[in-house]
Amino acid sequence: MHPLPSELLADLPLRHDKLRAALAAAQADALILTLNVDLIYASGTVFGGWFYLPASGEPVFFFRRPFDFQARIPGFEAVAIRRPDQIAEHLAASGRPVPARLLLEGDELPASEWFQLARIFPEAELLNGTPHIRLARAVKTDYELARMRTSCRLHAETIATFPALYRPGMTDLDFSIAMEHAIRLRGSLGLFRAFGGRMELFMGSVLAGDNAETPSAYDFALGGAGLDPAIPVGANGAPLKPGTTIMADIGGNFTGYISDCSRTYAIGAIPSIVRNAHQVSIAICEALAAAARPGVRCDTLYALALQQAEAAGLARHFMGFGQQAKFVGHGIGLEINELPVLAPRSDAVLEANMILALEPKFVFPGVGAVGIENTYAVTAAGLEKLTCCDESLVTLA
Amino acid sequence: MHPLPSELLADLPLRHDKLRAALAAAQADALILTLNVDLIYASGTVFGGWFYLPASGEPVFFFRRPFDFQARIPGFEAVAIRRPDQIAEHLAASGRPVPARLLLEGDELPASEWFQLARIFPEAELLNGTPHIRLARAVKTDYELARMRTSCRLHAETIATFPALYRPGMTDLDFSIAMEHAIRLRGSLGLFRAFGGRMELFMGSVLAGDNAETPSAYDFALGGAGLDPAIPVGANGAPLKPGTTIMADIGGNFTGYISDCSRTYAIGAIPSIVRNAHQVSIAICEALAAAARPGVRCDTLYALALQQAEAAGLARHFMGFGQQAKFVGHGIGLEINELPVLAPRSDAVLEANMILALEPKFVFPGVGAVGIENTYAVTAAGLEKLTCCDESLVTLA
Repeated sequence: MHPLPSELLADLPLRHDKLRAALAAAQADALILTLNVDLIYASGTVFGGWFYLPASGEPVFFFRRPFDFQARIPGFEAVAIRRPDQIAEHLAASGRPVPARLLLEGDELPASEWFQLARIFPEAELLNGTPHIRLARAVKTDYELARMRTSCRLHAETIATFPALYRPGMTDLDFSIAMEHAIRLRGSLGLFRAFGGRMELFMGSVLAGDNAETPSAYDFALGGAGLDPAIPVGANGAPLKPGTTIMADIGGNFTGYISDCSRTYAIGAIPSIVRNAHQVSIAICEALAAAARPGVRCDTLYALALQQAEAAGLARHFMGFGQQAKFVGHGIGLEINELPVLAPRSDAVLEANMILALEPKFVFPGVGAVGIENTYAVTAAGLEKLTCCDESLVTLA
Repeated sequence: MHPLPSELLADLPLRHDKLRAALAAAQADALILTLNVDLIYASGTVFGGWFYLPASGEPVFFFRRPFDFQARIPGFEAVAIRRPDQIAEHLAASGRPVPARLLLEGDELPASEWFQLARIFPEAELLNGTPHIRLARAVKTDYELARMRTSCRLHAETIATFPALYRPGMTDLDFSIAMEHAIRLRGSLGLFRAFGGRMELFMGSVLAGDNAETPSAYDFALGGAGLDPAIPVGANGAPLKPGTTIMADIGGNFTGYISDCSRTYAIGAIPSIVRNAHQVSIAICEALAAAARPGVRCDTLYALALQQAEAAGLARHFMGFGQQAKFVGHGIGLEINELPVLAPRSDAVLEANMILALEPKFVFPGVGAVGIENTYAVTAAGLEKLTCCDESLVTLA
């Protein structure tokens, strides 16, 4: 098995430093990560095992599989174990202190595994580290930012080809499959990852016509009935019809870092209020991009978006119709739904190297959804758009 | 929002009866389910909320979203709530007793949510219900079996078209994308669901040549390097070469019920020991299908498979090379990895209406993986194969 790329290996200590800062903020002595996305953050890849990081001192990668994992991460301590109690044994044998306050991934770690670690570290106070870990991950390293840039660029390049994939007579599903195929051919890894285990999506969501009104069973902004009750989201297989819109929200995952970008198309003539709402979405994105910079609170940005929707007389259509999502954007990275969330009462503050997806969308019964979504990097100068491609409401033919 | 299909609604009470049997086995008074797959089992679809089932009495669907969820499940009690403490309030207000022993999904429910429910039900003893719930789900209702049959049939029909998708000069990724596209066009929902939150896969795994030796970071039988360290499984983008094999393990999910079926192809001439191992895989499937019936223990079946691999002199190549998986088959349904597991020391006993995937596979360094995988229903008469298509080692041209 080959070592991970050297630039990736070089980035890991920077991430560990950020996790140590999270430990300091939580006044904890150590953390243990074991969920895939956190292991990718800590190691650059997936393995079966546990990542142990003390507040001071070097991390240890305890792995069950793959058996030759050590060769993947030269320069780091990797210890093959079979059971998690060997973590405590190894720490004791190597003269490390038992942690008094230990951070775990409480908002995702299965309860059984929490109790198992509690038995293994009977003297430790176990704390929910999820909010701290997610905050650490929200501010990307320069390496991560470069990966995001690559994913966003390839994503936008693929989206630019979507209008040409349309054929009269298509269903929303036909169009969705054509887009999925195009993005996969261009190098998307396909996999959709979300925090919390509840959000599920295949490659993305294509919402056409009145299917856009179907409220989401998930924490997505918009819903869609889907093709089967077992996965009630997105395209429902209905033919695309004149007088309706199609919102394509196909996820990008070209590098393990996920990008978010939606574009909307129209078939035939649609009401001017709907066309206008699309322009309002673009204007909200531009207003937020101008207002957002390090130090700005996320609730301020949400309020600004809502205010613009209200000023345009579109409040009732904003972020859904009937069921309205109470956010207008979100952090993004290894997962689609990272911190911060641009929502009412969010006191989170923007920092440089955060990545945000902004998605002011509007839903009109009988017509469909309109609006755009872009992914941005937070820089000292404001938001830098990473998903650059035509934002206009393109009429398909 | 439309009601769920009537046949699906009619099946739900049968599932609730099976969950009540699980409650009786655990000597518990009630259970609460909140993870997507368990909610699909209990309600037929996904919603944001909690499913409450007492040992005696009718279930209650507590939902946060979609706002009109009640209309999906006519005939059942559905209560709109915002916070889980309203579960206890509603139970008290409707004169239901507080459960003394309450089953939760301990092996998957996040620790934070476990502790939250513990605060809401301070008088209840909380128990890990995951093993009981998974056992209940392992034995399918007739409706579920019909859905599995449909998924398996469509899956096998699509696989029959795979050899024609091959073009000389393809990489493993090109071939994989062509297969993914074909199965999606035929109606696959695409989504891959697995128990435990650790197994991840896009649509499936295509393992060609020496990439089949790469040990899995996941609990999959076989591995593959993948395209990026962030998702180390399956195709690695290498050109397909003469003298190697290609194992296509593209998942089927046409109905929310997942089917598992692998087939293997060869390019050019491959060593006779490898061709022979493919026949041994077919023979093992046939031997297990003949031996398996209600009442048979799963460790017996694993031992039988291992014995045949050993008798053929192939033990070292069985279920991986270097890192060998210690199972030869698994239950399957809403998730790819259901109970029972055909593994050493598994005292699980087959029952009618269980669904099994059998996957005796062999890996040869420098050549690749060979073998087949099929999905079967356990019937009184033995195993009934549900994924029927050519099993031979087809040479591609």
